[in-house]
Amino acid sequence: MKLVTGGICAAKGFTANGIHCGIRKNRTKKDLSLIFSQVPAHAAAVYTTNLVKGAPLTVTKLHLQDGVAQAVICNSGNANTCNADGIEIAEKMSAATADALGIRADDIVVASTGVIGQPLDLAPIVGGIPQLVAGLSGDGSDAAAEGIMTTDTVKKEVAVEFELDGKTCRIGGIAKGSGMIHPNMATMLVFITTDAAISSDMLQKALSGDIANTFNMISIDGDTSTNDMVTVLANGLAGNTEITQEGEDFSAFMQALNTVTVALCRMIAGDGEGATKLLECRVQGALDEPTAKTVAKSVICSSLLKAAMFGADANWGRVLCAIGYSGAQVDVNKVGVSFRSNKGTVTVCQNGAGVEFSEEQAKEILLEKEIEILVTLGDGTADAVAWGCDLTYDYVKINGDYRT
Amino acid sequence: MKLVTGGICAAKGFTANGIHCGIRKNRTKKDLSLIFSQVPAHAAAVYTTNLVKGAPLTVTKLHLQDGVAQAVICNSGNANTCNADGIEIAEKMSAATADALGIRADDIVVASTGVIGQPLDLAPIVGGIPQLVAGLSGDGSDAAAEGIMTTDTVKKEVAVEFELDGKTCRIGGIAKGSGMIHPNMATMLVFITTDAAISSDMLQKALSGDIANTFNMISIDGDTSTNDMVTVLANGLAGNTEITQEGEDFSAFMQALNTVTVALCRMIAGDGEGATKLLECRVQGALDEPTAKTVAKSVICSSLLKAAMFGADANWGRVLCAIGYSGAQVDVNKVGVSFRSNKGTVTVCQNGAGVEFSEEQAKEILLEKEIEILVTLGDGTADAVAWGCDLTYDYVKINGDYRT
Repeated sequence: MKLVTGGICAAKGFTANGIHCGIRKNRTKKDLSLIFSQVPAHAAAVYTTNLVKGAPLTVTKLHLQDGVAQAVICNSGNANTCNADGIEIAEKMSAATADALGIRADDIVVASTGVIGQPLDLAPIVGGIPQLVAGLSGDGSDAAAEGIMTTDTVKKEVAVEFELDGKTCRIGGIAKGSGMIHPNMATMLVFITTDAAISSDMLQKALSGDIANTFNMISIDGDTSTNDMVTVLANGLAGNTEITQEGEDFSAFMQALNTVTVALCRMIAGDGEGATKLLECRVQGALDEPTAKTVAKSVICSSLLKAAMFGADANWGRVLCAIGYSGAQVDVNKVGVSFRSNKGTVTVCQNGAGVEFSEEQAKEILLEKEIEILVTLGDGTADAVAWGCDLTYDYVKINGDYRT
Repeated sequence: MKLVTGGICAAKGFTANGIHCGIRKNRTKKDLSLIFSQVPAHAAAVYTTNLVKGAPLTVTKLHLQDGVAQAVICNSGNANTCNADGIEIAEKMSAATADALGIRADDIVVASTGVIGQPLDLAPIVGGIPQLVAGLSGDGSDAAAEGIMTTDTVKKEVAVEFELDGKTCRIGGIAKGSGMIHPNMATMLVFITTDAAISSDMLQKALSGDIANTFNMISIDGDTSTNDMVTVLANGLAGNTEITQEGEDFSAFMQALNTVTVALCRMIAGDGEGATKLLECRVQGALDEPTAKTVAKSVICSSLLKAAMFGADANWGRVLCAIGYSGAQVDVNKVGVSFRSNKGTVTVCQNGAGVEFSEEQAKEILLEKEIEILVTLGDGTADAVAWGCDLTYDYVKINGDYRT
């Protein structure tokens, strides 16, 4: 397996584009993206667990009932959520896209991200679709990745190449992070494309299995958005024998998918609102996986720890505190904590109590941009990783700003 | 029932004091407090649910097994938590206090708040106890309230007077809020005194019942401290017939206790680290009380909403979002949201969708220091209240600062 360029257009048969259509006032900011597969693709998706769901999710769910899709249309600047006519708008957005592409409306994945509770004006979208379709290209991943950005400061795309059945396959993805746009609601959107041949059922199985260890292990601020969605389209153009059951090929596919999703997770967490650091909490020695995950997420979600990491403060007491209230059954007298970065590793706690360490060395380690928080529980062999970011002045600034 | 002055010394037979003994370097900051009842009192307590518990909690639990206590000793500046010799230190701190007061060591409630994982030096405490005891007075509530403060910006005390059985009774309390002291771990400590006569069992029942609706409904930052503790001493000097079962007297006692605890809750939440506003979320029309509580706490804990309140931004979508991910089963299409303060009330959402409102009026309402977030669920008759505060630059500043 190797990293390749091209993002969501790295896989055969996929083109993409992103434009400014006019949902946003700022003309330099793209606000409408399209991903297109030249043939209908098997499709799978996972959605937010928030009871308040964006209308596009309801429509996408309906469209994916047959496990097939051929295009993704996504706007930024307005989440089309908590609007009386949201479903109708999302259906019309799908229909306009399908018309322009000459495909079925129920083969469209539709998504929106931005402010919630404000009517989404269909006019700029319908007006922009012809230009969007005309500009579809194999180099369009960048533009599409830009069109879904909100408060993201960097565009997020990645692609890998691997082999299945002697055939070269690719998986690529773009994402927008859990950010608020001024003045809007956070959303995580991830669109993945692959030319591997895999049945809808196995694609859904791969995605659902993967997100439990990836996108469900990220936290920026503990808020679960109304519009979160991860979709995969698999168009089969790589020519491998279709994966229809578990086995070596499925494992290889899962591994490639995981490489893409972990890379996107790290990009999303590291680009959390106002973040200056990517935090990665690695829990080892847990009794079982649920325990490891609960502990890792509790640590990564602690506002106190996140603020300490912003201050490059090796305040391990906050790690122990977060483990203690996580709800996981752990023996706190066996807990060990270390901090690691490119500058080295410093152990700060063993057997639940502090150990002597150099504050200077700890500071040097914690001033880096990517910090690992290593927790050992000493209870078993299960492990887990969670990703997050530090809590900064800018998080407050971005989210405290008035909407209008 | 009426508010009275005197805090924890308002009830008959209680004296208190607070001094600087030298745990803190800053000599102007008190760091050791004592509360004393002239006769042994019935006692009840509730403790943090964090698996990582401060050593003083373990010792206090042991001392309260017989339901009797006569004094509370509490230092700030060091939490005596995650130290190898913590229990021994807490026992010695109790013993020194008991010796100086001429009472039993197991009638001492011992508490500590401050940095965790650093050895607590007993010398300044033992050295300070004679002065602390010598200065005990009926006017000492203020000094005691100051001695337990960490990042608190205001001292927190309250007392009420009420009647039981024709006798005048009083309940008073002091608290320190969920703050971090530079460079320390958050802790909520509440000490309540009363001259009402009530059995230990009924006192514990009253306290446990009350905190479910009060101290368990506050959130500053979602972190549950290792040292949280609420204790009540009831010395019976009011001369009422001892409350030994439920009934009218118990209800009157509960009501007075609740007045004290709600006042302290509001003080703690409003003085949350870096807070500029007290937030009170009132949920009405829930199917049952657990649902009402879950929704109220989820709203009050949302970092996004807390930041919006800092910015005086009527971003009701964040309220809906927090309700949606709370885990409570609610029909989001029936949810209503209003914001209320001294400047009036503005309804921003009805039936799960936005309604027209004046942004100017909303801004005026939200610029106040105390904001109520009113949520109606339309599913039943249960309600709940939760208290919190806004998320500000100063929260990040206080908690991002380096410990040394």
